[in-house]
Amino acid sequence: MTTDAAHDPRAPRAAASVVHYADEADLIVVGYGAAGASCAIEAATEGAEVLVVERASAGGGTSANSGGLIYVGGGTALQSALGFEDTPEEMFKYLMAACGPGPDEKLVAPFAEHSVAHFDWLVEQGLVFKEAFFPGAHEPETDESLTYSGSEDCHPFCEIAKPAPRGHFASVMGSKGAILMKTLMASAQRRRVRVRGDTLAERLIVESDGRVVGVVVRSAGEERCLRARRGVALTSGGFIWNEEMLEQHAPWLRRCKMKVGTENDDGSGIQMGIAAGAATIRMDAADITLPVFPPVSFREGMLVNCQGQRFLNEDAYMGRWGEISLLHQDGRVWLVVDEPSFGQPKHIPDIEVVAGDSIAELEGEMGLPTGSLQQSAAFYNEHAARGEDPLFHKRAEYLRPLSQPPFGAIDLLPENSVYCAFTLGGFHIDADGRVQTPGGEAIPGLYAAGRTTSGISKQGYSSGISLGDGSFFGRRAGRAAATAPT
Amino acid sequence: MTTDAAHDPRAPRAAASVVHYADEADLIVVGYGAAGASCAIEAATEGAEVLVVERASAGGGTSANSGGLIYVGGGTALQSALGFEDTPEEMFKYLMAACGPGPDEKLVAPFAEHSVAHFDWLVEQGLVFKEAFFPGAHEPETDESLTYSGSEDCHPFCEIAKPAPRGHFASVMGSKGAILMKTLMASAQRRRVRVRGDTLAERLIVESDGRVVGVVVRSAGEERCLRARRGVALTSGGFIWNEEMLEQHAPWLRRCKMKVGTENDDGSGIQMGIAAGAATIRMDAADITLPVFPPVSFREGMLVNCQGQRFLNEDAYMGRWGEISLLHQDGRVWLVVDEPSFGQPKHIPDIEVVAGDSIAELEGEMGLPTGSLQQSAAFYNEHAARGEDPLFHKRAEYLRPLSQPPFGAIDLLPENSVYCAFTLGGFHIDADGRVQTPGGEAIPGLYAAGRTTSGISKQGYSSGISLGDGSFFGRRAGRAAATAPT
Repeated sequence: MTTDAAHDPRAPRAAASVVHYADEADLIVVGYGAAGASCAIEAATEGAEVLVVERASAGGGTSANSGGLIYVGGGTALQSALGFEDTPEEMFKYLMAACGPGPDEKLVAPFAEHSVAHFDWLVEQGLVFKEAFFPGAHEPETDESLTYSGSEDCHPFCEIAKPAPRGHFASVMGSKGAILMKTLMASAQRRRVRVRGDTLAERLIVESDGRVVGVVVRSAGEERCLRARRGVALTSGGFIWNEEMLEQHAPWLRRCKMKVGTENDDGSGIQMGIAAGAATIRMDAADITLPVFPPVSFREGMLVNCQGQRFLNEDAYMGRWGEISLLHQDGRVWLVVDEPSFGQPKHIPDIEVVAGDSIAELEGEMGLPTGSLQQSAAFYNEHAARGEDPLFHKRAEYLRPLSQPPFGAIDLLPENSVYCAFTLGGFHIDADGRVQTPGGEAIPGLYAAGRTTSGISKQGYSSGISLGDGSFFGRRAGRAAATAPT
Repeated sequence: MTTDAAHDPRAPRAAASVVHYADEADLIVVGYGAAGASCAIEAATEGAEVLVVERASAGGGTSANSGGLIYVGGGTALQSALGFEDTPEEMFKYLMAACGPGPDEKLVAPFAEHSVAHFDWLVEQGLVFKEAFFPGAHEPETDESLTYSGSEDCHPFCEIAKPAPRGHFASVMGSKGAILMKTLMASAQRRRVRVRGDTLAERLIVESDGRVVGVVVRSAGEERCLRARRGVALTSGGFIWNEEMLEQHAPWLRRCKMKVGTENDDGSGIQMGIAAGAATIRMDAADITLPVFPPVSFREGMLVNCQGQRFLNEDAYMGRWGEISLLHQDGRVWLVVDEPSFGQPKHIPDIEVVAGDSIAELEGEMGLPTGSLQQSAAFYNEHAARGEDPLFHKRAEYLRPLSQPPFGAIDLLPENSVYCAFTLGGFHIDADGRVQTPGGEAIPGLYAAGRTTSGISKQGYSSGISLGDGSFFGRRAGRAAATAPT
């Protein structure tokens, strides 16, 4: 690591060279989304003086723009009130199966074990949950507060762990992400957390022994040094808006039309940390969602590749549709429907559909090898008529022979459709949000949470995991920093 | 500046704190495989005094243990002598298609453009090539010097670029990797390159402005500082032998039984560079080979997944068999053969085979859904009888209906088979082997080549690329370092 090196605009500054600190606090939090707010609240609760720097004019970030879904479970008060049984063990089993390949047990285990308490904490902050379940396969526009938000209730995950809905929303008719952030920021304000808006963090400040002791920020064109007595927490989001980082680490994401995040998700926090010796892991990983539902009748269709073969149970979570289609089929996939299963997809306004009066005709229109789709459809229909899907185990409620013309195929190539993506790679943290070096040691004074880190999901995703692990490990980071020796 | 920080055993040392240098040179090269030797030779040719440090007792490394295949082309003297037409343009087109997703044009372009000259340079070093072509799909035990070593002559690559064999071997009956390294090391010796064996590099030495000016090494239990007047080149291999790095960056590789590399491929060079501010990219990428050939008759079989579906043309390069099977089918694949296409695979001694007198019986033995394999086989056989493969475009010479019992299925699950893997992720370098920061600036005085870097292959592979890009960019790094200002 090198300080203020000409070759790296994110290189840390040597504490010895700082002549004046414009401000100071026990903990400086960089970025004011759900991870940063949770970190600030918890540190303040532990008695620390907290200063948040946020490059936007006001806090909220991607969390405020999100669907507001928080992945918690294991038997929360809301799950119980609605009659859904869940345990930390089943939640752990599900996450270890669904968050891979290669989920980090050291993060997943405490996340599952303490999830019920984390839900209670969210309620304590002022979030209101309504005892109402939303049965859809997408985010509700209504005010229910619990839903299945991942792959829990479908193959193969339903055989690995007992299914339970774990997507928790604050109850509101409007923006659920905005109410989440409004509530967390109000809680932080009650705890006298100070916030500097329009303030971009540019470099960390480090002692000669490597300890992080502050941040160099830029505000209104002026550079200032801020001193952190106990630590700095980087909670400034991922890098879906940094084209160069995408090209380097996950070039396939550039094919996704919709970047989930604000333009401030440009990886600046990750770059500052790397320059101070932080390790990053699984920089290839991302949530890739293909928002085909509603209409939920699409689950009655056949998702096929360019050999006319099925490759996924169509009742899968939309994040799996996107992930499997883009990563494993190069995005060259179609959804084949018949008349009753067709509908205008709400989130993909400009769909390309080819049609035919028979599967054979459709196959020709799609340019598939003769017989390939016909064969797949015949096999599918024969079994669907019996409520069976021996290849991919789609649930019986969505199994019905595709037999009513006209038949259609929706082109789901990323270039013709809407794939939504955000990055999941970032710092390697421990369960207290301490940022690790490549050698696996904690960097003194440096903490992180949310999408600046590689959290519990290492590729496979379920909606709500980012607000879930961001707020959970944000709190842990805040507590660890507040109780760390000065 | 963080030097010798307690939290990071690879953290660089401040030059200001070094009281004595035990040795010095213009260029210090860390690791003496093909990349390091090429770097040393070229720097010495430019007049630089070069010192190589190698942790093993003697040089050679993974290069010496390898098959010795070097990927060069574009119209080399050997290609021309054997009547194969090739141009830099076709080589470029092939590599851009085969080395992705996301190959780096800034590396691929000079590699293709100057490949003919690079071959001539290899000849100048003393490597002997025999004007004989090896037609097999694997590495020869005989002394021919040219072969197809990737996907050039099969779908879809043969439609993207005009096929040409680009795998060049030194002509020798024994170990081709050993003769390559023996020749390069002899050339280095003639140029008075000095080599310190049994010497492990532990940390870089950096000036306060970030310039790399030396290496801290350990030899016979003693730590020594070595001064580099013009630069340090890290050419110390990849990280296939570092379980923790695999778990963090590419956990699926832990399923591969055979690690291609020496135990010194533990990522130490990568970690030293990261600690000095180097960016790493595509740490998920790897060559994953499933060495099923010989017998080449396996290309007449059907490679199927657990839905009984084909997913790859079986005449593909073995690196594609491994990559596609492990990454996109979770390794749950079988090779289905009939009596004439079966043979004992040479490199997979303990195969698990299930058998049946009919495809239907075999399907049952494999535990596949009833009808799934039968349907795939019927479709395949119908077209194969006409010399066609409308799904995956296998070449006609390998197309023949699978019709002669008994039928067999070879279980190619990684746990039951032999997948060979080595890592392709590492430093982000420019075309002169300069190591980049996350912000895309070169770190002064730091160079790298070979599998310590992310080279021309970002996932898709062809045999010989590592010796090819390692020696090519090793030379460029050596030249850049030798001509850099002191």
